[in-house]
Amino acid sequence: MDSTYVLGIDFGTDSVRAVVVDAATGKEESSAVAYYRRWAQGLYCNPAAAQFRQHPLDYVEGLEECVKGALAKLPPGVADRIEGIGIDTTGSTPCAIDERGVPLALHEEFADNPNAMFILWKDHTAVKEAEEINRTARTWGGTDYTRYVGGVYSAEWFWAKILHVLRTDEKVRRAAFSWIEHCDWIPALLTGVRSSRAIKRSRCAAGHKAMWHEEWGGLPSEEFLTRVDPLLAGLRDRLYVETYTSDQKAGELTEEWAERLGLRPGIAVAVGAFDAHMGAVGGGISAGTLLKIMGTSTCDVMVAPRELVGDRPVRGICGQVDGSVIPGMIGLEAGQSAFGDVYAWFKDVLAWSLTEFAQEAGEEEASRVRDFIDHRLLPRLTEEAARLSIEETGLLALDWLNGRRTPFADQTLKGAIVGLTLGTTAPKIFRALVEATAFGAKAIVDRFQAEGLKINQVVAEGGVAKKNRLVMQITADVLNMPVKVVRSEQACALGAAMFAAVAAGIYGSVPEAQTHMSAGYSDVYYPNPENAARYQKLYERYLAVGSALEDHLRAL
Amino acid sequence: MDSTYVLGIDFGTDSVRAVVVDAATGKEESSAVAYYRRWAQGLYCNPAAAQFRQHPLDYVEGLEECVKGALAKLPPGVADRIEGIGIDTTGSTPCAIDERGVPLALHEEFADNPNAMFILWKDHTAVKEAEEINRTARTWGGTDYTRYVGGVYSAEWFWAKILHVLRTDEKVRRAAFSWIEHCDWIPALLTGVRSSRAIKRSRCAAGHKAMWHEEWGGLPSEEFLTRVDPLLAGLRDRLYVETYTSDQKAGELTEEWAERLGLRPGIAVAVGAFDAHMGAVGGGISAGTLLKIMGTSTCDVMVAPRELVGDRPVRGICGQVDGSVIPGMIGLEAGQSAFGDVYAWFKDVLAWSLTEFAQEAGEEEASRVRDFIDHRLLPRLTEEAARLSIEETGLLALDWLNGRRTPFADQTLKGAIVGLTLGTTAPKIFRALVEATAFGAKAIVDRFQAEGLKINQVVAEGGVAKKNRLVMQITADVLNMPVKVVRSEQACALGAAMFAAVAAGIYGSVPEAQTHMSAGYSDVYYPNPENAARYQKLYERYLAVGSALEDHLRAL
Repeated sequence: MDSTYVLGIDFGTDSVRAVVVDAATGKEESSAVAYYRRWAQGLYCNPAAAQFRQHPLDYVEGLEECVKGALAKLPPGVADRIEGIGIDTTGSTPCAIDERGVPLALHEEFADNPNAMFILWKDHTAVKEAEEINRTARTWGGTDYTRYVGGVYSAEWFWAKILHVLRTDEKVRRAAFSWIEHCDWIPALLTGVRSSRAIKRSRCAAGHKAMWHEEWGGLPSEEFLTRVDPLLAGLRDRLYVETYTSDQKAGELTEEWAERLGLRPGIAVAVGAFDAHMGAVGGGISAGTLLKIMGTSTCDVMVAPRELVGDRPVRGICGQVDGSVIPGMIGLEAGQSAFGDVYAWFKDVLAWSLTEFAQEAGEEEASRVRDFIDHRLLPRLTEEAARLSIEETGLLALDWLNGRRTPFADQTLKGAIVGLTLGTTAPKIFRALVEATAFGAKAIVDRFQAEGLKINQVVAEGGVAKKNRLVMQITADVLNMPVKVVRSEQACALGAAMFAAVAAGIYGSVPEAQTHMSAGYSDVYYPNPENAARYQKLYERYLAVGSALEDHLRAL
Repeated sequence: MDSTYVLGIDFGTDSVRAVVVDAATGKEESSAVAYYRRWAQGLYCNPAAAQFRQHPLDYVEGLEECVKGALAKLPPGVADRIEGIGIDTTGSTPCAIDERGVPLALHEEFADNPNAMFILWKDHTAVKEAEEINRTARTWGGTDYTRYVGGVYSAEWFWAKILHVLRTDEKVRRAAFSWIEHCDWIPALLTGVRSSRAIKRSRCAAGHKAMWHEEWGGLPSEEFLTRVDPLLAGLRDRLYVETYTSDQKAGELTEEWAERLGLRPGIAVAVGAFDAHMGAVGGGISAGTLLKIMGTSTCDVMVAPRELVGDRPVRGICGQVDGSVIPGMIGLEAGQSAFGDVYAWFKDVLAWSLTEFAQEAGEEEASRVRDFIDHRLLPRLTEEAARLSIEETGLLALDWLNGRRTPFADQTLKGAIVGLTLGTTAPKIFRALVEATAFGAKAIVDRFQAEGLKINQVVAEGGVAKKNRLVMQITADVLNMPVKVVRSEQACALGAAMFAAVAAGIYGSVPEAQTHMSAGYSDVYYPNPENAARYQKLYERYLAVGSALEDHLRAL
């Protein structure tokens, strides 16, 4: 029998990537990437106000470009043997749609209105609205709808963003029939759904960002929502009750899109989900594994059998949703608000003096300085920090430079460096910061374990996992457990391809797809038992210094 | 009547300076400086072991060179109208002497033995011995001889250094009849004292560094000293009982030294004292003024009427000695272990990236980088920090990077920077460090005031006071009192000259000499009331963060 193939499509923050994968082996046959054109020009965004919007045409054009690009690299005949498409996107990235499910920005009158576009995950314009949702949830006397999203509703999420737009843009408010997540819109588009009500909504997005839960029959009650703001009245009924896991088909590829992309019509398109969750599947997540996606921040994903978690909220994490990662299991999400960003921050502090020097130097010299900052500074810091022993820094740092996502979300917390002497050097500070991010990782592991969710190993993916061996070894030592690095550079797209394979009926379940298609690990970092013991003591001090400073950090 | 003149001689860490001053006006007529030759070559020192020794010939040769240099610049006839010499030195800087009062290193067999030389104030070889003195003082059941030196005996002081040499060098131990402070040896030398027992000892040195106090009849008892170590047996009797304030004559200039220096024989040589104390007099200290000598660290000096302090130890400061600063008043000493050193530390952290860049650059470029580090980095940091408002840093720092001298000495404490975010920049950190040193200054002011010693103003001298306007303004704002900067660049030598004028009988008292000879102030920094109120809140947080972290800082 000839091989069959599946297509994973991963919509990231700046670009979309298509990867064609052999469904039998998981082998990547070809891939291509397309950058969002309007986004790359900074259109519709205002970084000073933390407003980040993406035009739906960026997605559509990018999708066509990258899929055609990936198919063009395949040997003849392979494209016709692609049996399914899986899609992941960033999230929560919602957009206002009309009754037919079309994003408002695709209508001429809204073509340049940022409020009619997708509100990117990192848009922070809805801080006030999130606060109001939290206040209402804690005080209104009914169900606490935040209980399965970690007890704190974020400004980055669905309802806060919707409410912010409803309040600030009357034209959009009048025209918006309903709202959609990016991960729901692409499958709806490809499968030709013509009615907003008929769109199959992702369990992952609904459960983690929209407070959807079976316990209360879906989305939060009309009473709660109108208590938050009467502007939300009626919207609940125009959204959704049912949600779907991504092992299911959203539908079949339409003739039109089959032609536009160069694929066979009628192939399965899986229900969409968020990148971190599909990335966790692509990385081989299973019970007992904490999957850490390590980039500027981390997204930490776990799965647990339903009987282990039950209806009990796991305290201090970001969210728990039945089927959000692997259908049939509870998907759990946590994360560190800053990880690689902490190292980049210290690099920037040290780059200050170089930049000042460059300003007083000639153009050629200034260009060498910039090159040194971009390519040499972080590697040199890492090399020097690696030469130090654990006790040699004499420092202890807190990693909350961007607040703390988990355990126990508190965005008002801040970082600290404690134990400075006249002998403290830049590499010592850097090492302490690396240790601090590892302590932050351990605090998450401990939180899960305190809730009875055993963790045996960590599987890591993302830029930092691939690039910085010192960070990975210190993380393994601090956690005192092996840390494996996923071999695939495209774990999210690979995960999407696995979902495509299940939705297309090639495999009966996601774990079965993982067994056949996983790419394995490129590195395993084993803990050094002696270092682990020394770090255990320092970790206890990290916790103690953290509690001693928490109130002060909030107030500063 | 023709003017009369006095000569102030200030022995610093690296050099000795002679200043000829008009006794009527305090006007500086001429000055010259001479560097210690052996010291400049690094001889007899081992920085890695914190061993810092100075050869007595460095002092003798330097003295001759700078006095002759200063006299050479005077109009004819003026040198003959110099009526007195005042001398200040660093301290505690003791040396082993023979029965005739000669430093052992001046004998041929000890000429190259660092243990037979002056043990410079910053030598830290006697840490263990200081700990033992402290332990004995707290546990032996008799008088606590540390009660007037702040309750903690320092490794930088007289007895600890003596004991360390007695333990480590048997030859020196056998040859040492007695020991002498640098500030006592120079006057003894110039006045031709031929017997160790006849040397007039400085009240300032004895009281602040040797636990001498009238309450227990002079130095600590033989029983206490032998309890610390039997090696100290008998030494007490070969040291001294009486001490002298520096308004008194140590003696008259000998024929031999008059000829060597180019002065008239028989003129008054005042009893010596430490640089900070004579510098405080030169800066115009009086009751109600805190005199801060601001350099790498600070030395903070106060004077108070006897009836205000009485026999009560002022808690949490470094020492209190009747007559150590102004005869007839209690002299009180405090200080910050790191001040300018804190800024230099952060400069060094930022210089790391520049130095790394230079290592990958050509020689010419590397030389420009070094120049930038030496001359531009700190000024640029200061300029950028000055542009920030108080709340803009969002940071709070602890200034204990070299431990804490006062209040409540604890060298095991360390520094911290608290409140870091991804938006924290190098100038923000620098400003927080400047604020931290100002908070450290306020903690000392508060300690004095808590003991009933009112402070109305701060008078500042030293490198930082002269050079950094941002530091001075923030210090005034934090203290919420005016900070005046002494006009004289040579306040120590000017103070020594004032003592010379009193010892020579030109004035009846030190305050009278100050009235006529003070150089006044070059700048006055007035507090901005609004900033003062904002800093009061931040200062309270500094205290709270300090207490929250103290135990952790000790343990790190």
